Amino acid sequence: MNRLNSTFLLHGGDYNPEQWQKYPAILDQDFKMMQEAHANTVTVGMFSWSAIEPEEGVYHFEWLDDVFDRMEKIGGKVILATPSGARPAWLAQKYPEVLRTNEKGEKLLFGERHNHCFTAPIYREKVREFNTLLAKRYGQRKGLLMWHISNEYGGECHCDLCQAAFRNWLKNKYGTLEALNDAWWTTFWSHCYTDWSQIHLPSPLGDTSLQGLNLDWRRFVSDQTINFYENEIKPLRLITPDVPITTNFMSDTFDMVPFHGLDYYKFAKHLDVVSWDCYPAWNNDFETPAQTGMKVAMIDDYFRSLKQQDFLIMESTPSQVNWHPVNHAKRPGVHQLASLQHIAHGSDSNLYFQWRQSRGASEMFHGAVITQNGSNQTRVFKDVKQVGMDLTKLSEIKDVPYQCAEVAIVFDQSNMWALNDSQNYSMATKKYWQTLQQHYQYFWQHDIPVDIISPETDLAKYRLVIDPMHFLMAEKFMDKLAKFASNGGTVVGTYISGVVDERDLAYIGGWPTQLQQLYGLTVKETDTLYPQQANEIKAGDHGYRATDYCEILEVDTAEVLASYTQDFYAGTAAATNHPVGQGSAYFIACRTDTDFLADFYQKIVADIGLNKQQSIIKDSSSVSIQIREDKTNEYLFVLNFDSKQHEILVNDPMIELLSNQEQEGKSNIEPFGVKVYRRLK
Amino acid sequence: MNRLNSTFLLHGGDYNPEQWQKYPAILDQDFKMMQEAHANTVTVGMFSWSAIEPEEGVYHFEWLDDVFDRMEKIGGKVILATPSGARPAWLAQKYPEVLRTNEKGEKLLFGERHNHCFTAPIYREKVREFNTLLAKRYGQRKGLLMWHISNEYGGECHCDLCQAAFRNWLKNKYGTLEALNDAWWTTFWSHCYTDWSQIHLPSPLGDTSLQGLNLDWRRFVSDQTINFYENEIKPLRLITPDVPITTNFMSDTFDMVPFHGLDYYKFAKHLDVVSWDCYPAWNNDFETPAQTGMKVAMIDDYFRSLKQQDFLIMESTPSQVNWHPVNHAKRPGVHQLASLQHIAHGSDSNLYFQWRQSRGASEMFHGAVITQNGSNQTRVFKDVKQVGMDLTKLSEIKDVPYQCAEVAIVFDQSNMWALNDSQNYSMATKKYWQTLQQHYQYFWQHDIPVDIISPETDLAKYRLVIDPMHFLMAEKFMDKLAKFASNGGTVVGTYISGVVDERDLAYIGGWPTQLQQLYGLTVKETDTLYPQQANEIKAGDHGYRATDYCEILEVDTAEVLASYTQDFYAGTAAATNHPVGQGSAYFIACRTDTDFLADFYQKIVADIGLNKQQSIIKDSSSVSIQIREDKTNEYLFVLNFDSKQHEILVNDPMIELLSNQEQEGKSNIEPFGVKVYRRLK
Amino acid sequence: MNRLNSTFLLHGGDYNPEQWQKYPAILDQDFKMMQEAHANTVTVGMFSWSAIEPEEGVYHFEWLDDVFDRMEKIGGKVILATPSGARPAWLAQKYPEVLRTNEKGEKLLFGERHNHCFTAPIYREKVREFNTLLAKRYGQRKGLLMWHISNEYGGECHCDLCQAAFRNWLKNKYGTLEALNDAWWTTFWSHCYTDWSQIHLPSPLGDTSLQGLNLDWRRFVSDQTINFYENEIKPLRLITPDVPITTNFMSDTFDMVPFHGLDYYKFAKHLDVVSWDCYPAWNNDFETPAQTGMKVAMIDDYFRSLKQQDFLIMESTPSQVNWHPVNHAKRPGVHQLASLQHIAHGSDSNLYFQWRQSRGASEMFHGAVITQNGSNQTRVFKDVKQVGMDLTKLSEIKDVPYQCAEVAIVFDQSNMWALNDSQNYSMATKKYWQTLQQHYQYFWQHDIPVDIISPETDLAKYRLVIDPMHFLMAEKFMDKLAKFASNGGTVVGTYISGVVDERDLAYIGGWPTQLQQLYGLTVKETDTLYPQQANEIKAGDHGYRATDYCEILEVDTAEVLASYTQDFYAGTAAATNHPVGQGSAYFIACRTDTDFLADFYQKIVADIGLNKQQSIIKDSSSVSIQIREDKTNEYLFVLNFDSKQHEILVNDPMIELLSNQEQEGKSNIEPFGVKVYRRLK
Repeated sequence: MNRLNSTFLLHGGDYNPEQWQKYPAILDQDFKMMQEAHANTVTVGMFSWSAIEPEEGVYHFEWLDDVFDRMEKIGGKVILATPSGARPAWLAQKYPEVLRTNEKGEKLLFGERHNHCFTAPIYREKVREFNTLLAKRYGQRKGLLMWHISNEYGGECHCDLCQAAFRNWLKNKYGTLEALNDAWWTTFWSHCYTDWSQIHLPSPLGDTSLQGLNLDWRRFVSDQTINFYENEIKPLRLITPDVPITTNFMSDTFDMVPFHGLDYYKFAKHLDVVSWDCYPAWNNDFETPAQTGMKVAMIDDYFRSLKQQDFLIMESTPSQVNWHPVNHAKRPGVHQLASLQHIAHGSDSNLYFQWRQSRGASEMFHGAVITQNGSNQTRVFKDVKQVGMDLTKLSEIKDVPYQCAEVAIVFDQSNMWALNDSQNYSMATKKYWQTLQQHYQYFWQHDIPVDIISPETDLAKYRLVIDPMHFLMAEKFMDKLAKFASNGGTVVGTYISGVVDERDLAYIGGWPTQLQQLYGLTVKETDTLYPQQANEIKAGDHGYRATDYCEILEVDTAEVLASYTQDFYAGTAAATNHPVGQGSAYFIACRTDTDFLADFYQKIVADIGLNKQQSIIKDSSSVSIQIREDKTNEYLFVLNFDSKQHEILVNDPMIELLSNQEQEGKSNIEPFGVKVYRRLK
Repeated sequence: MNRLNSTFLLHGGDYNPEQWQKYPAILDQDFKMMQEAHANTVTVGMFSWSAIEPEEGVYHFEWLDDVFDRMEKIGGKVILATPSGARPAWLAQKYPEVLRTNEKGEKLLFGERHNHCFTAPIYREKVREFNTLLAKRYGQRKGLLMWHISNEYGGECHCDLCQAAFRNWLKNKYGTLEALNDAWWTTFWSHCYTDWSQIHLPSPLGDTSLQGLNLDWRRFVSDQTINFYENEIKPLRLITPDVPITTNFMSDTFDMVPFHGLDYYKFAKHLDVVSWDCYPAWNNDFETPAQTGMKVAMIDDYFRSLKQQDFLIMESTPSQVNWHPVNHAKRPGVHQLASLQHIAHGSDSNLYFQWRQSRGASEMFHGAVITQNGSNQTRVFKDVKQVGMDLTKLSEIKDVPYQCAEVAIVFDQSNMWALNDSQNYSMATKKYWQTLQQHYQYFWQHDIPVDIISPETDLAKYRLVIDPMHFLMAEKFMDKLAKFASNGGTVVGTYISGVVDERDLAYIGGWPTQLQQLYGLTVKETDTLYPQQANEIKAGDHGYRATDYCEILEVDTAEVLASYTQDFYAGTAAATNHPVGQGSAYFIACRTDTDFLADFYQKIVADIGLNKQQSIIKDSSSVSIQIREDKTNEYLFVLNFDSKQHEILVNDPMIELLSNQEQEGKSNIEPFGVKVYRRLK
Repeated sequence: MNRLNSTFLLHGGDYNPEQWQKYPAILDQDFKMMQEAHANTVTVGMFSWSAIEPEEGVYHFEWLDDVFDRMEKIGGKVILATPSGARPAWLAQKYPEVLRTNEKGEKLLFGERHNHCFTAPIYREKVREFNTLLAKRYGQRKGLLMWHISNEYGGECHCDLCQAAFRNWLKNKYGTLEALNDAWWTTFWSHCYTDWSQIHLPSPLGDTSLQGLNLDWRRFVSDQTINFYENEIKPLRLITPDVPITTNFMSDTFDMVPFHGLDYYKFAKHLDVVSWDCYPAWNNDFETPAQTGMKVAMIDDYFRSLKQQDFLIMESTPSQVNWHPVNHAKRPGVHQLASLQHIAHGSDSNLYFQWRQSRGASEMFHGAVITQNGSNQTRVFKDVKQVGMDLTKLSEIKDVPYQCAEVAIVFDQSNMWALNDSQNYSMATKKYWQTLQQHYQYFWQHDIPVDIISPETDLAKYRLVIDPMHFLMAEKFMDKLAKFASNGGTVVGTYISGVVDERDLAYIGGWPTQLQQLYGLTVKETDTLYPQQANEIKAGDHGYRATDYCEILEVDTAEVLASYTQDFYAGTAAATNHPVGQGSAYFIACRTDTDFLADFYQKIVADIGLNKQQSIIKDSSSVSIQIREDKTNEYLFVLNFDSKQHEILVNDPMIELLSNQEQEGKSNIEPFGVKVYRRLK
């Protein structure tokens, strides 16, 4: 596993000098302003194929050489991207199999980006050739920091080559058609396959609702993308074995849900460093900035957890993007706050898309450090410069790990796919990731660190494992949970769990025995509520609202913590606790409001002693305190996500690094303000 | 017309043992639990083609033989389905013409179900062959109760074979292109056809708004489906001339509108018994259970009226389905109530989809009697068992007809198609069936039986015929109505009636004379209101709200019952009555609220003496009393659609059959409760 | 430029006698009722290709000759349409290249209308042949008033012929691929074209977000449509050089936005007379009739401004259409009001679609003068007859020009395309035309005439030029504005202006210097607000609401008129004024409410003396007074768009032409009433 060879936190971002070759003054200005903004890193080459190879076999590396020269001159670094995310028109014209075929079997035309076939041998060959040239030419450059493979991998192709690859993948997985027919339960609707050639990937013109097929297709697409990536990095590993490699991962916008198309836990094993592109909608009109902050915090924790190591923000916008429904300007302070939040959660970079705003084409209005205006007097440039100075002051934090989390929330990619595809419950209210956020919120508000783990993750280091809506749950994970609890761990499970196995086949004969034994109960029924319907649950005197899903339990040896008060299951258990060996297992049977979860977790946290004594006291849950620490120092990031000023109390004398002042006692933190304290341990 | 050879009300349902051949213990359990639940009938074979003929010409009937053996052993019956609803992969691969072509001319792939071409000769041949084998092997089995042809026929194919068949159908109908051009008014937009080959069925790539073409295409699709069905039953009629035949009809979900794609009145003539699949959304959040109950009552009445004889519920869910937007659990009592409601309206069965829940694939989460849990302790199994016991107690009711209705509501399939397709009024507010429901409601709330008839139906037995929104009305039906009224009948007509003839050509020269004479008025204008607009009509002192459609009348000899109070037609007639021979004809010129219809029908019912003296008095319109009767007995079903308890008063001493107790006087009926009384006439 | 050879205001409309050739009595009735309704003009031939040429080379002109005979007999006129809007089935079958290919490359089928390829040589040839025959046969007929080319040109074709034509168009425009690559900024995402054949028009299967391509495609489609039109008129100009030519333009329905697909300013240069089809939704439930009236007024002004001359209403409905979401009946008075409003704004006609309602097919329910009823006693026929009498009384107004406007609002077609396509701001709130309406409203309410001009229009005659949201603004237009202001003109500009040049490339290096100098400020940032967000601006003591867009200004030499009161730019300028030479330039930085614009323009109007002394005083802004005038007379149309009666004060004695009475002093104007005064100057 290669580590980044830099002594600083990365600051800078995507840069497209190929667009400005006819504007030499602008190129000069770009590098001058990098220095002014304390930028030290550019990512280049991402969509530069046609600029480097304008016709087949004719190469123009000069402009790229120039970027290396200039960056090295100012002591900066280059992240070099492979160009596969967009191919030249000549290549698409000459080798049409590089273009995707859509789910209706229509061949796509040249255009846009991120739309190449992941299987086509000729594209793989062309990419390998190109990457070889890059590695040979730039592999030894001092300025080369890392490889950035392609861009935001995603999507799928439905061409005959991909069909054939899918069938091979299935043969490898199932061996026989009988095994496949059993796994996909193809006796249903006379779907038995008697020849591999009869299998066709999901299509609106054919099958869309055969879950086994859908799930394996999702897995194949993810595997084939990784396989394409492996083809890309082969020459790089050969020629530059010590240069670290990444590719940039994604989330959606409003709920910050990880990109649904790829199994990032699996993919991350093939990377040296995880990096991701973060575009939240700050200061929108449908949630508080603190809610946005909580969502970003959680997905930062997710990307950090993929490899349990520091990660990079590869893209973010210094101002607004151009593709949100409403492209709202960042409020003063928000850029600094949002940038340092990532650092606080374990990022070693804050990189932007993009350094210089394009003059035309698709994303010409996407925010950039240097706008079309070109000025260093814009608000965005000043904001970026501020962050550049901050990161310089914080450079000692590089490589300091995020604090060790004892709480884990389980996110299972196959479960995400299977649950979203399940024909049951209510399509509109499944909200798997959003449910994880609901559980995460308490910990974020109370500054208790959390990892977002996969079912594969070793649980040994955790004391509390939260496992909501685990619809598709493999038996071996049930065993793992049981063992974890027996050994003293605390487990929290919820409604809609343990319904199907890893093939998406229902468990038959009742709720799985392992879960019955773990939670001391069995699930009898799931009641899916209409949007206007609700139940109430009561724990002691306190009532809470339950919506969307209410499961009816038959409690065996569990203790009842809360019960329903309404409808035909009034009086039955809605939340339980069950002692298991040296640990215990909680079960929440319905979708509650967050008040319930706050009270619920407060008690667990107190019971198992997760709330450490805090060296900084805050007066609001909108203020978040995140810690990176090594053997000698603790770095406390105090982040105010409120548009109001708040007060903190610093218990020990500490250095506030951004102001370089020692502080103790009461102190104000500005609206959207940040402070970073170093505390000697 | 063959009748069912059974002595009991049917209880049981769709069963897919082919899915469980590797699980012998489950097969044993299935039949054991049938006996426990008083189930006596299974429907098998529906999607079993690939299980029976896994490769061309190789047959495996053993498992199906076994079902017959087992059912006969427990004294039960088998409804044997033909498998055409889904073909094996090998068949689609070898004979691709069996697959549909969609409206854009795209050939569909193998997958899903219900998607075969209704024209392809090879598919017709294969189906005929298969059905012949079934008839030969099982035709003489004691356990064979009836044939179930395919499944939920619907949809359409746009392949060249279907195009050719459509053109032939048109040639048969019109004889000459001139006649077709005249009927479709093709001088409009230069559409005149000069060769039959120029005619192309409606397509988003071609014509979508030529109403004559659209209407004939709808009629052709319906006829071609019946033609396909006739091909299916040919070998069955030949080999098993005494075995009754059905196919399962459908409705939509939320408004219980009959499936729009087929002319069920026409189709029903080809069946021995009408059966249908009923999946209402009980206990939703947008209407009261009584409203849902009213909608189900009306469509039960519709299916009963198709052949004016008892019908079957072929499918229903014992709990929830998997394909509603919200798959809500049935509340206690609702399963019994919903099941017995069908019996009350003339069903001789309550059958389920499905007996045993699948383990995987598309509908794996559709409710079933035996859930994936496998237990006989589930709420659903207990509910089903309860209904099984009820049906056993009610078995004397089998073959007892539903009471004779003297009220008829006209539903015209061609009108449904033409009105929905008409470019006029407001697409969002046409709501033909929903308007019929509005009229039906009064009668349901007052326990007055209603038939839902077609324009073909003989009117002799009726005293009141309600004919709302009859946009496409043939002249011969106008004559029929006039004759009915002259002979003493009462007619109710409404806005948007008599606009086009059966070709979808406007009547010219004014509102049809027959209607003018019938109603004693003419329609001058139709005012279509925006959603936020309303008028008021006043009858005496009482005001009612009018929305969506207000017609302006010129009253000739009719008596005005209510008038508009607003807008430029304030003071003009909104509802009228007109004496015709020995009868009379009412006209309602606008879409009123249901209060108006309640007052309106109350008076008519009183005037013509439709309100008989009732032997059971109820205290709420949410309680419905439905009667089946023969020469000696009257069976009164008292159905409480309210979540509150209600009181009934039994005037004569009667046996309540479910409790087997004699009752008289006041009695409570539980929330969602049912009582069934036998009263000696 | 040919002028109409008629002595009357045109009244009548589209007529389809080819549909009624089998109904001779109806044809007789049609012409009789024309005389009764004072109709003098019919438009025929529009979709008559198959009626005239039922098979290739076989012609039936008899019925069309008959129309000329009959019209000439009653002293009326014929507008003769070329039939290219819909081709016969035989032609589509024999020459399939006449049919369009859609944006996904799918060949369309015969059907509907308005869907021919604008490039296919065979269609151009066939159309030219046909038009030649028309010109030869009818060119000398006394009854021939003008040529009506095709119908409602619009849409686009994506076939290979159109692709080739587009590439040629691009070659002509750019000369070299390098110039094209530069203009489209194709270095972005590796889109550089190295061969012209690589360019593919925008397609959902290829590129949809390359703005330069999109914008040029829009321009090409517009040019190619005009080119097709030029092909159509070639034989007409040759054979009938003195007969004026038009084609009917369009707007959308609810906001009365000009049809987006064509550059009407450019197209109008090829016409002798502008005509358009007007279908507003009067008396809807989402706005007042006055708001509808204002929108119609503005687009009438737009179509009049295209050639700065009188125009024609070619189509309108005498009652309702059949294709609105709600086809609401016209309220009493509204037909007269709506008809005379057009005359007031410079129309010399009120023509209808259609004279006689069809009996069948797509638009059979579209309103018509003679309904399917056939009666002359319908409300619509009486309304039309009333307008017929009115137009007869007003015939002296024909050729009297609309009063001279000193206010101009700029509408730039390329800006419309580019702004709508720009990936920035918020898609939902761009609303370019609607923003123009917001500015127009004050002038309409105060009876100050306005032209809607293009950037090409000579500004010399104006004193106030309003130029909102001019996102794509050419530098030469900036110069033009500057010159206009220097010479004493007043300019009003707004947020989102001067962002890109005519290639859709961003201006770099800051807001264009010309605009900085004009407005005395620079734009620093555009803040796009979420729908639930707002700011407030204050001018003196008065506060106004700002939504959607707030720009942050750096004011140089401008005077601040209003400032923001909220958010981080509170206190900065929101509206400014800047003296320029002998004129001045106002800038409004945010989207304000209309109260602000009312106060803002009131002051400007007073300052520059645009409010003339009025000879008729009204008591409500819902009453509009529009003037046509020549050297001797002023014709004042007083139009009451309110459902309430209003009072006017006539200052001088004048003849009210509809009643032919002299009036002076106070007078009532009925709800939806109209008066037309002649005032001697």
